[in-house]
Amino acid sequence: MAEKEITSRQSPSVKRYVRLAGSRRARYEERLFVTEGAKLTGEAFAAGYFPVELFAAEEAFESAFDTLSPIALAAETFCRITPAVADKLAQSVSPQGVFGVFRMLDNGTQPVKISSNGKFLLLSSLQDPGNLGTILRTAAAFGVGGVLLSDDCPDLYSPKVLRASMGGVFRVPAAVTDDLGGWIDALKAAGVPVWAAALRRDAKTLREVSLGEGGCAVVIGNEGGGLADGVIGRCTGSLVIPMEPGSESLNAAMAAGVFLWEMYR
Amino acid sequence: MAEKEITSRQSPSVKRYVRLAGSRRARYEERLFVTEGAKLTGEAFAAGYFPVELFAAEEAFESAFDTLSPIALAAETFCRITPAVADKLAQSVSPQGVFGVFRMLDNGTQPVKISSNGKFLLLSSLQDPGNLGTILRTAAAFGVGGVLLSDDCPDLYSPKVLRASMGGVFRVPAAVTDDLGGWIDALKAAGVPVWAAALRRDAKTLREVSLGEGGCAVVIGNEGGGLADGVIGRCTGSLVIPMEPGSESLNAAMAAGVFLWEMYR
Repeated sequence: MAEKEITSRQSPSVKRYVRLAGSRRARYEERLFVTEGAKLTGEAFAAGYFPVELFAAEEAFESAFDTLSPIALAAETFCRITPAVADKLAQSVSPQGVFGVFRMLDNGTQPVKISSNGKFLLLSSLQDPGNLGTILRTAAAFGVGGVLLSDDCPDLYSPKVLRASMGGVFRVPAAVTDDLGGWIDALKAAGVPVWAAALRRDAKTLREVSLGEGGCAVVIGNEGGGLADGVIGRCTGSLVIPMEPGSESLNAAMAAGVFLWEMYR
Repeated sequence: MAEKEITSRQSPSVKRYVRLAGSRRARYEERLFVTEGAKLTGEAFAAGYFPVELFAAEEAFESAFDTLSPIALAAETFCRITPAVADKLAQSVSPQGVFGVFRMLDNGTQPVKISSNGKFLLLSSLQDPGNLGTILRTAAAFGVGGVLLSDDCPDLYSPKVLRASMGGVFRVPAAVTDDLGGWIDALKAAGVPVWAAALRRDAKTLREVSLGEGGCAVVIGNEGGGLADGVIGRCTGSLVIPMEPGSESLNAAMAAGVFLWEMYR
């Protein structure tokens, strides 16, 4: 560990953090992402992500000393920062004075392993980072075997996704793929039924199909447009959550949550 | 119906709409609220809300003629607007050129009636309008008998809540109260068990308690702070959604959704 003090909002470390927080491209060029707050920073470290840089204002460091001191020791650089620098780094409404820069894992977070009795969630062209974060938080809580994302979903490592996931992104195996259809085929080949969450004439309802026994996978589509026909056609069948007349749909994160709960309950 | 043409962004009707969209106080002084988009405007009308004013750009009106023409006829004033005026009124990212001003109902939306075999959701000091809207959308989809909100929750008629609810706010009976504890007592007196969604030593889990049979109610607390002890103490008992170790909680809307699904499934 190297230790330094940063008092200038123009320091290269500060500029890099801001760039990584704001740009997906910058994150993937450097293969780094950022965390804000002692809790999220601690979760990234606990999940095995390598801390490149830890920034902490004095008071913030002391008040989360047990979480942060091992990270400070492990980090390439530990930067003590002033409140003015903390303000510059902060993305959240109530900044806490702790910020991390971590090295990404390849192609997602923890690796997803296909098994015949595993539970999987597939996300196709999801749009909203808040929805993705909420889904990852819920997937972690309900212990799914893996989340598979098409590569046009929001970035797993964007600050909004990390924040909404409450660290769930570090606890759940998740992989980003440019071939979601290939994963669907691989799951089916392993004996895992793959259900498209889509309203089709021949769709079964969640009252008829039990997701609790054995392996299963559910594919959730885009918030506005749902799932593409090509994706639906590749699945074992379609599955809908029954609803009252007059209601057409649930929020995408909510629908995912109901499926995840059914897998877990 | 009176009909007029509005070409000025400074017209009193435009100013009133903007004031109602932006200020809870203005809404409750005038007892009016606003809707944006043909779909939400149509749902408010279909639910029996009285249309005071309907604004529509020409193309938008034509493309949703079947929905909008009865509203235009019923409205006190139907205002044809220019695209520039539509831009001024628009709150959403993709404005559609249709806007309504409706009269509120008293103390909530549709009245909530207690019955011994009804399903109820109680919200105590919820904070986020997006969460509230998502909960109302889900409550409508899963057909609850009523949603009861403490009066420090976000305003049911705020544009953010209406938008996230996708019209659910017009389909589900909901009442705002300064005495949530009184409603808890009334529900219990009617034989409805009232569960506090709270992690207590003596809490039951959703695997032990069936919410599907007979009447039941669940109380959800604030996103950050959960439920106050006074509220928990007044309930029949505490109920938690089982989760994997390492996960502390679900998003408040997600937790509400899982309870609502269990009531409905």
